[in-house]
Amino acid sequence: MAQKSNIPKGTRDFSQDEMVKRNFLFNTIKDVFEKYCYLPIETPAMENLSTLLGKYGDEGDKLLFKILNSGNYLKKVSSADFNIEKLNNLALKISEKGLRYDLTVPFARYVVQNRNDINFPFKRYQIQPVWRADRPQRGRYREFYQCDVDIIGSNSLLNEIELIQIADEIFSKLKINCTIKLNNRKILSGIAEQIGESEKIIDITIAIDKIEKIGLDNVIAELSEKGISEESIEKIIPILNLSGTNSERIEQLKTILNKSEIGLQGIKEIEEILKLLSPFSLNSEIVLDLTLARGLNYYTGAIFEIVSKDYEIGSICGGGRYDDLTSIFGLKNISGVGISFGADRIYDVLSKLNLFPENLESRVKLMLVNFGDDILSHSLQLLSKLRKFNINAELYPDSVKMKKQLNYANKRNVEFIAMIGQDEINTNTISVKNMNTGEQLNVNFNDLMDLLS
Amino acid sequence: MAQKSNIPKGTRDFSQDEMVKRNFLFNTIKDVFEKYCYLPIETPAMENLSTLLGKYGDEGDKLLFKILNSGNYLKKVSSADFNIEKLNNLALKISEKGLRYDLTVPFARYVVQNRNDINFPFKRYQIQPVWRADRPQRGRYREFYQCDVDIIGSNSLLNEIELIQIADEIFSKLKINCTIKLNNRKILSGIAEQIGESEKIIDITIAIDKIEKIGLDNVIAELSEKGISEESIEKIIPILNLSGTNSERIEQLKTILNKSEIGLQGIKEIEEILKLLSPFSLNSEIVLDLTLARGLNYYTGAIFEIVSKDYEIGSICGGGRYDDLTSIFGLKNISGVGISFGADRIYDVLSKLNLFPENLESRVKLMLVNFGDDILSHSLQLLSKLRKFNINAELYPDSVKMKKQLNYANKRNVEFIAMIGQDEINTNTISVKNMNTGEQLNVNFNDLMDLLS
Repeated sequence: MAQKSNIPKGTRDFSQDEMVKRNFLFNTIKDVFEKYCYLPIETPAMENLSTLLGKYGDEGDKLLFKILNSGNYLKKVSSADFNIEKLNNLALKISEKGLRYDLTVPFARYVVQNRNDINFPFKRYQIQPVWRADRPQRGRYREFYQCDVDIIGSNSLLNEIELIQIADEIFSKLKINCTIKLNNRKILSGIAEQIGESEKIIDITIAIDKIEKIGLDNVIAELSEKGISEESIEKIIPILNLSGTNSERIEQLKTILNKSEIGLQGIKEIEEILKLLSPFSLNSEIVLDLTLARGLNYYTGAIFEIVSKDYEIGSICGGGRYDDLTSIFGLKNISGVGISFGADRIYDVLSKLNLFPENLESRVKLMLVNFGDDILSHSLQLLSKLRKFNINAELYPDSVKMKKQLNYANKRNVEFIAMIGQDEINTNTISVKNMNTGEQLNVNFNDLMDLLS
Repeated sequence: MAQKSNIPKGTRDFSQDEMVKRNFLFNTIKDVFEKYCYLPIETPAMENLSTLLGKYGDEGDKLLFKILNSGNYLKKVSSADFNIEKLNNLALKISEKGLRYDLTVPFARYVVQNRNDINFPFKRYQIQPVWRADRPQRGRYREFYQCDVDIIGSNSLLNEIELIQIADEIFSKLKINCTIKLNNRKILSGIAEQIGESEKIIDITIAIDKIEKIGLDNVIAELSEKGISEESIEKIIPILNLSGTNSERIEQLKTILNKSEIGLQGIKEIEEILKLLSPFSLNSEIVLDLTLARGLNYYTGAIFEIVSKDYEIGSICGGGRYDDLTSIFGLKNISGVGISFGADRIYDVLSKLNLFPENLESRVKLMLVNFGDDILSHSLQLLSKLRKFNINAELYPDSVKMKKQLNYANKRNVEFIAMIGQDEINTNTISVKNMNTGEQLNVNFNDLMDLLS
């Protein structure tokens, strides 16, 4: 019996039509990254579990795909280890490696491992798949691509500016109207300090981060659950409800946080970023959003999140400043800032809003109809000549019925069909048909080249 | 204590310098694939183990990286399963998925799974990493890239021609002088038939395939071990020792195999391929090599292998015709032919022979020196203008000592350094230095653009 031909749930094949669109997206992103002088690196799909574990919280650890050791994977295992209560313990005895969960931790590991060869400030981008053993659902996959761009080894706010410009330019090229939400972790720290709950900053951040998903009431409930006093919660609410323009909010915030040094520092950074950006007309709208927290604990300064204005799918890009990401691997005091583009969601936005350029799929310029062995050498010579001029051209490989060949060409979005029969050989011409207009002509080689270009 | 920052053995990070070179290689390959109208697909890194197991022989099965099931991976396991004698058995109870071992089996699975949407003959290329739990050694990695190009759903020998032309064009563009070794599985079957050992065709093929590695004497020993009679072996030796031009060898072979229908069919195919290629002047030398067998059992017709003439590193490209690869997944009678480029070995050849184009690394056209906040807005405006003209330009993010900034630019292979101070602002000019020649000029914006282009 034949085997089933399917793929693991949560994973996808990409067809040629999809790949052509995905490549358009990746190339747009890459071109902008490179224009801003970021260059690529790649890291292996597998990392040691010691590198990955403990970096993404308990939940993240559970979502790591672990790779069974090769050879005798039971060699470190005793019968007492086969205990369903100690699954994690056993897993670490039978597997040492895991698939990367994101590109940030491998990047931090890379920077530390290669610190002596790296020219700081180090501007790198990285476009590779990541894997998460998440429950698959619509729009959530177990293998997906991240496109990360970071600069590490510089404290300058110019880097924050540059990343915002990069995002704005990429989304402009993709014709996606965006809102860039901006906040600063120092402001969140200031709020926690101001209300006397500094030690609960992580709980507060995590709760605030959920406001868009679960609403204000549920955030309040969660804060209360985490032991934040009613009095403190009452002080947070007006901050989350600030209104007006960015400058108006900043002014209100300055008053509220007037006793928090770190809070005022965060406000100053936001002001500086907005001031430096002001001479440039961005297509995206920049909004100071104090409810933006971003769950990840390594952020220490500016944080960003970008959403599409015309199709609601959550964050399509996000990131922030981290002052100490590499210290866990032994390299201290090296600050960086980065953003990550969610290629799969951006692809969905482009699809839903019909923003992929037309004719992206028509990658075959010309197909020669195959009329059999007698004129094969003529066809092959024409083909070779066209390819010398870098025309994407092909000869249908089998001399089957014309209808079948044309059907193939149609499905393939071929732009031109060329036919060479005995008449054409005698007159040294080519019969050519424009598959879009239906127009048919008999031309010589030079005219054909004009037609194709 | 800080964690160690290292990667699993047999895997690699790719630095920016390496990535720029790797991308040059991949883009060269892709451009030719697309000129010949092959389009990309991608398949997931993980496949179900049922898809992968049994496709690469017992040895291959052992080299598959298996992924531990998520959640309670012990749920199908009883205490009797913890038996070091039954490692494979247990492995299949705790893991369902594996990392792909090559691109051929996933391609066959893809074709069968998507057969109703595919426009046959189907011309696809696929450039993705594969993973093998091989013992790491120089030039052999546990993660490496394959670049496969196949056409499936056509029996025409024109496809074999096309793949040879593709390989020749790619290696010509890369300036690697190659020998393309050509053989046909039908000739090997004919030889087995002729000597009366048809049922031992696989053993014969596997033994012959090792001739370059282990030499004729050891091949003879292996044939003998496999139970091929001395008489039969004596008949094989002259075939392996055939000499002369391709046509001379073909003529000798015709006499030797004159009673084997399948052998003569193989010879006819080789002749046809050589005849069709004869009008085109290839850069590579094509050599009929009867010792070429290629270990994989799915090949049924033409087989190819390509080696560099100037740097001995084994096969850098290989493939062949397979008549029934998809039948294991339930789709019969669909013939294909393909070749695979070994990116890592080709990279090594290019490195050893110094064939990478010069200046590949200098991707930053211009760096603006940072002279501090006073003239920041001028610098940012110039930068923005340069980027509008698609110049890869950057501003050093921190206003540190000039020497440090120049040192950074030097290491980064920046082509031009630009400086704007108060003098330049007053005269609306830019001071610019060519980092290769050392030449320094004071120019206006239009002159700068001329200089950069």
